[in-house]
Amino acid sequence: MKRRRLSVLLLTGGLTISLLGGCNTANSTDSLVLAEQGNFSAGGTVITSEGTFDSKNPFDPAGQTLHGDHADVFYQIPEDANEYPLVFLHGAGQSKRSWQKTPDGREGFQDIFLKRGFGVYLVDQPRRGDAGQSTVPEQITPATSDQMWATQFRIGRMPNFYPGVQFPQDEESMDQFYRWMTPNTGAYDEEVISDAMSAVFDESGPGILVTHSQAGAPGWKTAMKNDNVHAIVAYEPAAFLFPEGEAPEPIPNRFSQELPGLTVPVDDFKQLTEIPIVVYYGDNIPEQPSDVPAEDFWRASLEMANRWAEVVNSHGGDVTIVHLPDKGITGNTHFPFADLNNVEVADQLSSWLAEKELD
Amino acid sequence: MKRRRLSVLLLTGGLTISLLGGCNTANSTDSLVLAEQGNFSAGGTVITSEGTFDSKNPFDPAGQTLHGDHADVFYQIPEDANEYPLVFLHGAGQSKRSWQKTPDGREGFQDIFLKRGFGVYLVDQPRRGDAGQSTVPEQITPATSDQMWATQFRIGRMPNFYPGVQFPQDEESMDQFYRWMTPNTGAYDEEVISDAMSAVFDESGPGILVTHSQAGAPGWKTAMKNDNVHAIVAYEPAAFLFPEGEAPEPIPNRFSQELPGLTVPVDDFKQLTEIPIVVYYGDNIPEQPSDVPAEDFWRASLEMANRWAEVVNSHGGDVTIVHLPDKGITGNTHFPFADLNNVEVADQLSSWLAEKELD
Repeated sequence: MKRRRLSVLLLTGGLTISLLGGCNTANSTDSLVLAEQGNFSAGGTVITSEGTFDSKNPFDPAGQTLHGDHADVFYQIPEDANEYPLVFLHGAGQSKRSWQKTPDGREGFQDIFLKRGFGVYLVDQPRRGDAGQSTVPEQITPATSDQMWATQFRIGRMPNFYPGVQFPQDEESMDQFYRWMTPNTGAYDEEVISDAMSAVFDESGPGILVTHSQAGAPGWKTAMKNDNVHAIVAYEPAAFLFPEGEAPEPIPNRFSQELPGLTVPVDDFKQLTEIPIVVYYGDNIPEQPSDVPAEDFWRASLEMANRWAEVVNSHGGDVTIVHLPDKGITGNTHFPFADLNNVEVADQLSSWLAEKELD
Repeated sequence: MKRRRLSVLLLTGGLTISLLGGCNTANSTDSLVLAEQGNFSAGGTVITSEGTFDSKNPFDPAGQTLHGDHADVFYQIPEDANEYPLVFLHGAGQSKRSWQKTPDGREGFQDIFLKRGFGVYLVDQPRRGDAGQSTVPEQITPATSDQMWATQFRIGRMPNFYPGVQFPQDEESMDQFYRWMTPNTGAYDEEVISDAMSAVFDESGPGILVTHSQAGAPGWKTAMKNDNVHAIVAYEPAAFLFPEGEAPEPIPNRFSQELPGLTVPVDDFKQLTEIPIVVYYGDNIPEQPSDVPAEDFWRASLEMANRWAEVVNSHGGDVTIVHLPDKGITGNTHFPFADLNNVEVADQLSSWLAEKELD
């Protein structure tokens, strides 16, 4: 890497010695020692056209199949890994890129938690990124919408950054960040996604699901479908699943008109009461209604999160809502795991994982 | 990983000790020691809508931008890396997945060459995979076409595998392989791709470009655009660029009717005479015309490759065409780097890199 050549030179001069060597060892925090890395597709469906395939007439669909709607997974397992890996699911318009290098080239949660001993599974959900092969058609229509997204992601009221925001403001970093967006190649479908995520957990074994934003809802459903989800860490979700009959009134807001409290059958809901859950929100979420739709939406979401935590915990659950400014951690955007202070944000998560004996 | 738990346990029991430790060291071939890994987007364009963005009216495109048509790159640098990294560009319908774990879970060229000391850069080209944000619209229309592709990729005359083919034939491996396919999210455009690839080489610094199939043509153009391309390794390309006035007649075939010899200005062509180039083809390419269009297409491609090598070399170039069966290496498909004998295929490449003093 030309831009980061200096850091590469420094890093290759570091020590990288791991255990079992019969001599004193010193693990450099700058190098990664992996027992294994790899990829697989999980879940998905197969469509078959009737008839018999003829290799002399290959463009006739007769007898041919289409494999689609799977998740694409890249995993890395460090040596001497902790018991539970972290399984990361991105939010709207995003991909596994969310968890990798930050827009300004620092380590993201992939590297930070690898170096803290966790296996990491980075998912592209069905119909997104490298899992793009969809079984349903889609019209992709590019639109100039970067500033809408950056505002929705609470980087600022674009083009103005929030004062003290924990996000790089230079042009190159913003260029990199905007290029993380990648479109759906088929309709967004929570059931398709949570089915594929359940298949991911069949492969990963028992683990901790980490969701971002829109991934909140399919994340809750993944836990309902697979006992291997031993905990959920949700960054800034906006959708919450209540037991039938216990949903609060929708919360009016200037972005989506009403943020509803969604419901699921009580038996499904119960799964959420049986695992520890932590939900994080960043800064610049107003307490009072805002005439900026993005801000007003996150006000409603945080309010709904608090109502939901009360309901889950009243059923014996273990949900903690963390509004980072209440911990004295200010300036975070909708991407706390990629923000300038993402090591501090990671420390918060590490503390919670330790408290729940998940590390 | 549940399916590969056994291998993980074996691997984590291995030694991983690297240098500079002040004690005897033994590098396990089963572990990876990385100085660095990360991601970036390279190249691309920005579209801007006139006007001023208003955060209170965020769905109005006025004043908003769209960043698209970049390449997405994941790179890994081993400790004590060789001078030149390998920069991998996938073929039609594929993504960086081509170079990672094989369909049956073995190491692909990513891991094989990392462990041989090369930095690796895995690219999703513009409008594909995690680089999906396109500046042009696209209609995605799923079609049952797996068997067409598998036949085109010379795994067999599907549903029959070629006798002795170097490809796993179990259902799970084929399921994984079919799920590597991912659609274009905008029109395939060689100039867009080679522009982005040139930007990748601005970041990687001097390196070796490894192309697969359709990536051949944008690969040749990348070398014409960026002096950092110090060598090209092309697996089964089908398009070749001749100097104006020296293209052979098109080669008739039953897949594309005619395979043309494409031309570029002599000054552009010259760049291909100034770097070492090796081109590999697998097995089951007939010498005589075949009534299976896929086979007939690769017959024409290999013939065109040989004519092209003669022209480049007559201008002082250094092109080697390797038809693997001529080396006694049989059964390879269109994906030699993922085939059952991909370590032997990698050994062939290592020998060539050593001969050209590129390792």
